[in-house]
Amino acid sequence: MVKIVGLSGSLRPQAYSNLALQEAAVRLKALGAEMDILDIQTLNLPFCSGGGDYPDYPDVERLRQSFNEADGIVLVTPEYHGSISGVLKNALDLMSFEHLSGKVAGGISVLGGQSNNNALNDLRVILRWVHAWVIPEQIAIGQAWQAFNSEGKLIDEKLSERFDRFAESLVENTRKLRGIY
Amino acid sequence: MVKIVGLSGSLRPQAYSNLALQEAAVRLKALGAEMDILDIQTLNLPFCSGGGDYPDYPDVERLRQSFNEADGIVLVTPEYHGSISGVLKNALDLMSFEHLSGKVAGGISVLGGQSNNNALNDLRVILRWVHAWVIPEQIAIGQAWQAFNSEGKLIDEKLSERFDRFAESLVENTRKLRGIY
Amino acid sequence: MVKIVGLSGSLRPQAYSNLALQEAAVRLKALGAEMDILDIQTLNLPFCSGGGDYPDYPDVERLRQSFNEADGIVLVTPEYHGSISGVLKNALDLMSFEHLSGKVAGGISVLGGQSNNNALNDLRVILRWVHAWVIPEQIAIGQAWQAFNSEGKLIDEKLSERFDRFAESLVENTRKLRGIY
Amino acid sequence: MVKIVGLSGSLRPQAYSNLALQEAAVRLKALGAEMDILDIQTLNLPFCSGGGDYPDYPDVERLRQSFNEADGIVLVTPEYHGSISGVLKNALDLMSFEHLSGKVAGGISVLGGQSNNNALNDLRVILRWVHAWVIPEQIAIGQAWQAFNSEGKLIDEKLSERFDRFAESLVENTRKLRGIY
Repeated sequence: MVKIVGLSGSLRPQAYSNLALQEAAVRLKALGAEMDILDIQTLNLPFCSGGGDYPDYPDVERLRQSFNEADGIVLVTPEYHGSISGVLKNALDLMSFEHLSGKVAGGISVLGGQSNNNALNDLRVILRWVHAWVIPEQIAIGQAWQAFNSEGKLIDEKLSERFDRFAESLVENTRKLRGIY
Repeated sequence: MVKIVGLSGSLRPQAYSNLALQEAAVRLKALGAEMDILDIQTLNLPFCSGGGDYPDYPDVERLRQSFNEADGIVLVTPEYHGSISGVLKNALDLMSFEHLSGKVAGGISVLGGQSNNNALNDLRVILRWVHAWVIPEQIAIGQAWQAFNSEGKLIDEKLSERFDRFAESLVENTRKLRGIY
Repeated sequence: MVKIVGLSGSLRPQAYSNLALQEAAVRLKALGAEMDILDIQTLNLPFCSGGGDYPDYPDVERLRQSFNEADGIVLVTPEYHGSISGVLKNALDLMSFEHLSGKVAGGISVLGGQSNNNALNDLRVILRWVHAWVIPEQIAIGQAWQAFNSEGKLIDEKLSERFDRFAESLVENTRKLRGIY
Repeated sequence: MVKIVGLSGSLRPQAYSNLALQEAAVRLKALGAEMDILDIQTLNLPFCSGGGDYPDYPDVERLRQSFNEADGIVLVTPEYHGSISGVLKNALDLMSFEHLSGKVAGGISVLGGQSNNNALNDLRVILRWVHAWVIPEQIAIGQAWQAFNSEGKLIDEKLSERFDRFAESLVENTRKLRGIY
């Protein structure tokens, strides 16, 4: 069974990033993946100080273990200032090669303004740096306020199809690259 | 008089990033700039939640005001996972166009391994996003442990010359772009 | 007087990139700049072979001289495969620091599909590499076929205002950075 | 059998890029891959004009067919001005999704100066754009003049090991992603 960890890099209440992560998770589960959704809003994570151990923050271990046990990764980031959120980058900084290398990852970004790939490009290079695979399929949700309805459901049909393909690629290729059948 | 704010994005004690910021600051002061060095290790900053106000964290206001009053900016980042630190990105996320737009910035990165421009490239695009100017001169300090001596002084002569040119460019061009004489 | 060289990186007949360059040129002239528009469709340029001299291609010298004499640069690129065109990159490869360093540049990209900053980000880092300045203002023209009318005039008003600001920034800041009054 | 096409983006006689491609090819063949090495110095390719057909240039068809038939791709680029060569980008511009999508690619860059990832990062985003996979392993050869001996053999042992791992990853993961056993 393919295990996939999901993490959204937004602390905003009712964040569109979290909705996007849910959209991905529903599809990934339907394709047979076991999902471990981390909620960064309830995790108590410190700022990364470069060192390895954070005895006062047991959630660092929780974060690392979830990524360690996963075959695949879904990262969702709000695009802040043309890149990924500091919150998400800091969570990645708290981990190292041993938690991320060889995993198969997919990236999703959420913007208030016009769609753009800046955050996803940076995320791709960052994940490569730790020797993760990043699937070619990626999703940039521009003007997020009109992509979802008031109940938090994705109403943009083209985006919905992109989520379908994203989830299919992530599950299928995680299987292939990790040899899970 | 040119006012320059300096910020290092490392929380590691005795961080090389902080030493690099000091190297820049000494030269900038010698060229007549008024320096405001923010110490991210003592500032009490929250994770950015996307909103504007952080009444429980007066240091957010301190951060914003320092950037607001500055003509120029020096940002130093450890390169973590092939990009800027989450700590630095989060500090930038806590600010917006009004604090950063039109400022003249220079970037410095510090790596344990081989020198590389990943973090500086990302930083350049991020600063452009908020309509800051980024000077062409930039410094990537690879294998930082052999660039400084045990007293924290820069001992690599080529790097020292790069710092000289970096500081000269930042002061001279901040004057030009901001019309300060 | 501010001298600005303009180059579009498209060989497509009636290229939108050329129209975009015209839009910029009209505004730059109105602001008092002397424009030197190079037409890459009539220039006879070789593929860059890494060496310095191209005696069989006098247009290489023409290209280099135009950039050499310029204070400012406007580069327009079609976005091909998420980056600048090979045609434009090759023209830049034919030049070196001496032709590009210290110049003040602005970038414009043109896409058939949705607007995106990939080509402009790459262009920014490339120009930095040769120590040119790149103004914060940049223009990504998505779905170019509906931005211009059948006579090749820009009909998108928001874009038109972006061109205004782009031209103003390029002229004003070229003056400042190059000390031209 | 895994088919891999190799292309170097340098027109310089005795280019280090070509030597690097040979180093990769030897290892890929030893691992059972069928190699198709394209020699860009003898291919007669036009500048891309955005259109699809180049009846006067049969080598465009040769290029496209080689990529079309390949499962995997090795691209080597000299790093010019902090990005891939215009020559290589133009060759990629001459192809489209149908020739590149779904292939598994690896990138190698060659620099005269200090090692750097700029060209490889740009190449990664470009290949993603056309929905190719890019393996996490990549090779940046800095100060290429001391990496090879006068007979064109790689003499840097660490680099040689990187080539080993690069080739192993490319063959193994092309098999996995393309289902070739």
